[in-house]
Amino acid sequence: MPAGELRHTSPPPPPPDTEEEEGCLWSEIKAEARRDAEAEPSLASFLYATILSHSSLQRSLSFHLGNKLCSSTLLSTLLYDLFLNAFSTDADLRSATVADLRATRHRDPACVSFSHCLLNYKGFLACQAQRVAHKLWTQSRKPLALALQSRISDVFAVDIHPAAKIGKGILFDHATGVVVGETAVIGNNVSILHHVTLGGTGNTVGDRHPKIGNGVLIGAGATILGNVKIGDGAKIGAGSLVLINVPPRTTAVGNPARLVGGKEQPTRHEEVPGESMDHTSFISEWSDYII
Amino acid sequence: MPAGELRHTSPPPPPPDTEEEEGCLWSEIKAEARRDAEAEPSLASFLYATILSHSSLQRSLSFHLGNKLCSSTLLSTLLYDLFLNAFSTDADLRSATVADLRATRHRDPACVSFSHCLLNYKGFLACQAQRVAHKLWTQSRKPLALALQSRISDVFAVDIHPAAKIGKGILFDHATGVVVGETAVIGNNVSILHHVTLGGTGNTVGDRHPKIGNGVLIGAGATILGNVKIGDGAKIGAGSLVLINVPPRTTAVGNPARLVGGKEQPTRHEEVPGESMDHTSFISEWSDYII
Amino acid sequence: MPAGELRHTSPPPPPPDTEEEEGCLWSEIKAEARRDAEAEPSLASFLYATILSHSSLQRSLSFHLGNKLCSSTLLSTLLYDLFLNAFSTDADLRSATVADLRATRHRDPACVSFSHCLLNYKGFLACQAQRVAHKLWTQSRKPLALALQSRISDVFAVDIHPAAKIGKGILFDHATGVVVGETAVIGNNVSILHHVTLGGTGNTVGDRHPKIGNGVLIGAGATILGNVKIGDGAKIGAGSLVLINVPPRTTAVGNPARLVGGKEQPTRHEEVPGESMDHTSFISEWSDYII
Amino acid sequence: MPAGELRHTSPPPPPPDTEEEEGCLWSEIKAEARRDAEAEPSLASFLYATILSHSSLQRSLSFHLGNKLCSSTLLSTLLYDLFLNAFSTDADLRSATVADLRATRHRDPACVSFSHCLLNYKGFLACQAQRVAHKLWTQSRKPLALALQSRISDVFAVDIHPAAKIGKGILFDHATGVVVGETAVIGNNVSILHHVTLGGTGNTVGDRHPKIGNGVLIGAGATILGNVKIGDGAKIGAGSLVLINVPPRTTAVGNPARLVGGKEQPTRHEEVPGESMDHTSFISEWSDYII
Amino acid sequence: MPAGELRHTSPPPPPPDTEEEEGCLWSEIKAEARRDAEAEPSLASFLYATILSHSSLQRSLSFHLGNKLCSSTLLSTLLYDLFLNAFSTDADLRSATVADLRATRHRDPACVSFSHCLLNYKGFLACQAQRVAHKLWTQSRKPLALALQSRISDVFAVDIHPAAKIGKGILFDHATGVVVGETAVIGNNVSILHHVTLGGTGNTVGDRHPKIGNGVLIGAGATILGNVKIGDGAKIGAGSLVLINVPPRTTAVGNPARLVGGKEQPTRHEEVPGESMDHTSFISEWSDYII
Amino acid sequence: MPAGELRHTSPPPPPPDTEEEEGCLWSEIKAEARRDAEAEPSLASFLYATILSHSSLQRSLSFHLGNKLCSSTLLSTLLYDLFLNAFSTDADLRSATVADLRATRHRDPACVSFSHCLLNYKGFLACQAQRVAHKLWTQSRKPLALALQSRISDVFAVDIHPAAKIGKGILFDHATGVVVGETAVIGNNVSILHHVTLGGTGNTVGDRHPKIGNGVLIGAGATILGNVKIGDGAKIGAGSLVLINVPPRTTAVGNPARLVGGKEQPTRHEEVPGESMDHTSFISEWSDYII
Repeated sequence: MPAGELRHTSPPPPPPDTEEEEGCLWSEIKAEARRDAEAEPSLASFLYATILSHSSLQRSLSFHLGNKLCSSTLLSTLLYDLFLNAFSTDADLRSATVADLRATRHRDPACVSFSHCLLNYKGFLACQAQRVAHKLWTQSRKPLALALQSRISDVFAVDIHPAAKIGKGILFDHATGVVVGETAVIGNNVSILHHVTLGGTGNTVGDRHPKIGNGVLIGAGATILGNVKIGDGAKIGAGSLVLINVPPRTTAVGNPARLVGGKEQPTRHEEVPGESMDHTSFISEWSDYII
Repeated sequence: MPAGELRHTSPPPPPPDTEEEEGCLWSEIKAEARRDAEAEPSLASFLYATILSHSSLQRSLSFHLGNKLCSSTLLSTLLYDLFLNAFSTDADLRSATVADLRATRHRDPACVSFSHCLLNYKGFLACQAQRVAHKLWTQSRKPLALALQSRISDVFAVDIHPAAKIGKGILFDHATGVVVGETAVIGNNVSILHHVTLGGTGNTVGDRHPKIGNGVLIGAGATILGNVKIGDGAKIGAGSLVLINVPPRTTAVGNPARLVGGKEQPTRHEEVPGESMDHTSFISEWSDYII
Repeated sequence: MPAGELRHTSPPPPPPDTEEEEGCLWSEIKAEARRDAEAEPSLASFLYATILSHSSLQRSLSFHLGNKLCSSTLLSTLLYDLFLNAFSTDADLRSATVADLRATRHRDPACVSFSHCLLNYKGFLACQAQRVAHKLWTQSRKPLALALQSRISDVFAVDIHPAAKIGKGILFDHATGVVVGETAVIGNNVSILHHVTLGGTGNTVGDRHPKIGNGVLIGAGATILGNVKIGDGAKIGAGSLVLINVPPRTTAVGNPARLVGGKEQPTRHEEVPGESMDHTSFISEWSDYII
Repeated sequence: MPAGELRHTSPPPPPPDTEEEEGCLWSEIKAEARRDAEAEPSLASFLYATILSHSSLQRSLSFHLGNKLCSSTLLSTLLYDLFLNAFSTDADLRSATVADLRATRHRDPACVSFSHCLLNYKGFLACQAQRVAHKLWTQSRKPLALALQSRISDVFAVDIHPAAKIGKGILFDHATGVVVGETAVIGNNVSILHHVTLGGTGNTVGDRHPKIGNGVLIGAGATILGNVKIGDGAKIGAGSLVLINVPPRTTAVGNPARLVGGKEQPTRHEEVPGESMDHTSFISEWSDYII
Repeated sequence: MPAGELRHTSPPPPPPDTEEEEGCLWSEIKAEARRDAEAEPSLASFLYATILSHSSLQRSLSFHLGNKLCSSTLLSTLLYDLFLNAFSTDADLRSATVADLRATRHRDPACVSFSHCLLNYKGFLACQAQRVAHKLWTQSRKPLALALQSRISDVFAVDIHPAAKIGKGILFDHATGVVVGETAVIGNNVSILHHVTLGGTGNTVGDRHPKIGNGVLIGAGATILGNVKIGDGAKIGAGSLVLINVPPRTTAVGNPARLVGGKEQPTRHEEVPGESMDHTSFISEWSDYII
Repeated sequence: MPAGELRHTSPPPPPPDTEEEEGCLWSEIKAEARRDAEAEPSLASFLYATILSHSSLQRSLSFHLGNKLCSSTLLSTLLYDLFLNAFSTDADLRSATVADLRATRHRDPACVSFSHCLLNYKGFLACQAQRVAHKLWTQSRKPLALALQSRISDVFAVDIHPAAKIGKGILFDHATGVVVGETAVIGNNVSILHHVTLGGTGNTVGDRHPKIGNGVLIGAGATILGNVKIGDGAKIGAGSLVLINVPPRTTAVGNPARLVGGKEQPTRHEEVPGESMDHTSFISEWSDYII
């Protein structure tokens, strides 16, 4: 998505030096946690265990994921090791984490702080864990990647296949019930609400899941099936059922989904909905003359 | 909602003395649990731990919630203390619990006993825990309230913002996937099925979530978005997408939702659907001439 | 469902000797797990605990379910005992497990091995646990059956009433959010995607949930309400809302659902969609001329 | 030990039919637990989990040992299976359990009931677990036997080598700190207090640990080293250090131990001290003229 | 013990107002924990969970004991409740806790702070738990008291019968292996090292355990058996075996124990050895001319 | 200890290259574990989790200690991190571990393999954990060091002050009840049996605990009190009470301890008893003419 084509409402792009960026954000997160620990002693133990006792964002995140995703047969120490090793050796994973934290904080008005997202957003946590599972998948460590997928699905009710490719700056809001299939691709700066399915087309093998462009917004409960292309900056209305390509910067709504403005000359919007998160105004208009 | 306006199918209103009401219900719950423990020794340990060893409903509930919602970094003893303190000092919380138990038992034909609801209904449990989180939120203990929200969402797949205001006599049936936003308000005697979203309108700050009147019934998978008003005694059909106000005692169905009977003169019903739970007859009619 | 009436795409029927069939499959599962344990030492502990240390499929499954579904008040040893006893004494339960494993492996292209399904598919695990709960229910051990339902709903976000009758060769794909009511019946060789509801009709007591025929395919997010009959080999489109009977080998799509080909002369297909899992081609056609 | 030679103060010998004996005792244990559960609801959950939900003594004991000895890397279900399999297939193990329960109840005035011993006596529990470890050892399953020994030592602070042979009717009173070496042998109806060592003689391989006869009593803190023989019905005073054979029905006291009555003509007693548990009168006399 | 008779080396007696005393100590403990949490972030989570999140010493102690003594069948919430209820309603229990903390801090040079004792001294923790078990015992809640004794013995390797009466200002140093029988009595300001046994005299019922006077010091590994009286301010040497009364302010050493200075005119000392903790000088003299 | 002065029965000294030595031993341990896992599938999960999934001895040991010593308030991930960091950055710690493993395997005839020691010997595990606690102590991280001491004492019943200095090639056999004080020093190649106390002299501050030379053997239950010096190659008999210096290569036995051969001209032995572990022959002689 050529950045120039869309009006950005997001914060300025991160500085080139990821490590500095990460250090900056980590300082802010620790300051938030320290403030909260002082104000709420009964939460301080939790905040020290998850954030304040750690020396870096990647250690804090690895600890938190290890303790959230462990089970009686997959111990927290094993998972902690696995996550820490992945985040430590892959700057891309770390910069994606930073971008997701900034995206969530910026886009979700209910997100009161970075630490709130880091600790409490299961969409964020599921996404970070999936990225590690994806790395394992590309290293042909498939059984481990699939075991991780299963734990993420059990614990967070978010089921993303480890083979799926996910960009940076992603917001999975609420996240319960999200399902993303094996050959799905999600671009950068995408926002996806809960109960969204990026599903396949039956039992055919091969490339069979949606390709989501940059800056796309997908409303709650939307179901997108098959190897269809959702163009950059498109919006998918809540509860929509989409089975055909959606052009860039257009809006699809309904079950089955129609393009707002009509199939031939769909209305095109200028903003980046994945970032602006305006996911009802357009539907309201559409539904207004119906209800 | 003036009670006189609607035909009540619910049990007689609770006696003025909440404590007596609570004591009564608690006796009944213990009797049920005792009967079940005798009939099923392999469940007796569970029943004694959760119900029969406790001296009051609030202690039993605090114990059960503490053990359900705890994690390796949020210990059960801490949560037990938190819940017990909240329920002990707030009669409103306790009377809401009693009303919810009675509502579930009365409205859900699959609910065989009060103890069944207390122990096994995650919608009931999530709702009680949210009320405590709400109390914390109003006391400006936001980080703790948000941590609680996160645990409820992880454990029960029910994601209700602690700022949301919820009335009494609520039935969250099945409950998986329910999402309720920060500025949402839910009246009394409301029944909400699973996968229901009371969502916001993008990243605007402020009052942006639905207001649900008294006696409303919201069918499975319905999505209601924005600061819209669902009038007292209204019905929202399963799978509906609602973005505009729905008048009292009318029915909205479809994606996008339309009023049954038409926008201008919608059909008005007399019963309280949140209590009668009749959530298909009206849709059947509507869909009958379509399929 | 007369087998001759539908073109089967499934594997040949299992041999008459269930025990032999089970032994065969178990050998294959162990071989898979051994291969994975060798390739991935960090997963070997998990694979030995769940599969390789056990002498039979039923022991492995009982162990895995016991450890997945246990809680601080329902210990793993108790559940293990319960499951092992049920599977050991009921050949029907065991043959259903075998059929489900084969169905999943055959129908889901993302399922790379039997052990992958056994260990990681929460739909598979929830279904096996529900069958045991159903057995308890028919033995009038209702409180225990309901406690099991509650644990399955908490852990897997799959809420199937223990009284519901479920056939063999079932695939619950992804499974998050599935809700199946008390008087629902599901035939053989059915495939059900996530977020599917087989729900009731309000607070009436009695037979009030859908009856799903053999070989049916129900797409993601579909909601079927009331005591309606979905005929053998029918397809229900993703996101559909169904409130009326659907004839055999026809396809219903939309909210509210319509029959493809029209109410009077609906198009009939030949394959068994529950087995072929083709769940978008038909909807695509339908939606094509709309979007 | 010819029974006629010693005055028995113990209960009549168990009936020939072990199964009946076990059933009898189990009924008594359940009656005790039921009485306690009624009197103390806060303990009822524990009593149902450990005793009242089980159908036999061996199941109850296997459950209790599995839950006591498990760790994050040795799961309770695995241990439960292991114990249950051992006790189910070996009547000797079961009759030894019965004899130990009767011995403890009979000899220890602080033991108020059979269930008290079954649930709370770590010496009893360590001994039962060691017998299973011994069985594994004789089946050449040494690594598993040693892992069990390690767990018993961690959990109960009782360190008995799995190769050690232990008779029936054994009381390990208090038990903390007991150490029994690889080639030690303990006869029937022996009572051993806490901190007792049956140790070896350095790093020589082979038969290097004490042989304890029938009916022996070994006082608290006594240390017996090397392949020495403690004769039937002998007493070893508390705190004694014994490195040489002790004749039957004599008493050894002191550090280093001397025979009461002198080396040449030691005083011989008539009772079975392992059963009468009189472990101070004789020392008192001896120490009386010293202090 | 008339205070005038012995030279006190202990701190001045606690003020009459126990609550104030407790509040004072609690403030000091919190200050210590806060200082440690700041200096060592990796311990801060532990310190907040155990101390800094609590509003009183009794809550902190109840939390810590509940979490230390819980098991899979005796949940931490149940124990927390039990301890909190006991400490809240019994000022004597609380003042004993305060006296023990002060005694440990004063007498043990290895005790660097009150919080060190509260968190890490298993002798201290076992003693507080035993006092609660004793309270239960006197209320005829024997099965619960015995279950508690068993947990204390498992977790701390300290086995004190709940019927034993224990005074205030007690130091159990190191504590591993301490055994105290049913009818034992321990006075005030007593110090007892590890491996000490206050044992009985076989299987006779009734009053059969030692009575320890005020200000007594009992060295490591000492064994005192039978209903003997250890007079106020007496010293028992490490490794001694005592079976006869020891007069006040005298010293008994050896196996069997002799009085220093001879049986007829034993040497009398002036200090309170239980407080001064001088437990070797006297033995050195005695052993000096032997080694 | 001049090596020439004593007859060595130990294996040749480790090669200069510790890393190579460690790698060698680690290969052997993995080979043992692999063999055991194949022979005993029910233990394989444990062996993979603790040994076979790890890439180095230090990782395996850190994992095992983290999981053994963790509690509900000190999480395994935190401890794992702490141990791994210590072992990774301190070659001395690692070479001590190697030396201890070799010492145990060589000296204890009951030790069947290196992996047996690594997994099951609580004396070995307690010693490795204490060395990490000692490192923390010398870094002035005292509260954390003391918390670790407390966990080691709870879990292993081994109480070694973190300030105590411990050499290499140490065997703590059985280990239950070992107590080592703050200013104690233990040389190299020392063997210490269970219930051994290296204790202080009351409440004086400062250097007050024993100094144990190289190659010393201390028998079970021996108590050594005060700042005394046990010379290189000395033997302390089981159950001895030692309060005065013991010259090199001499033997002290009894309560109170005397030198074998007499105070003036004690018998001197040639071997290194800490390595030969001959801990009864000498006592036998001494006790022979007594019993």
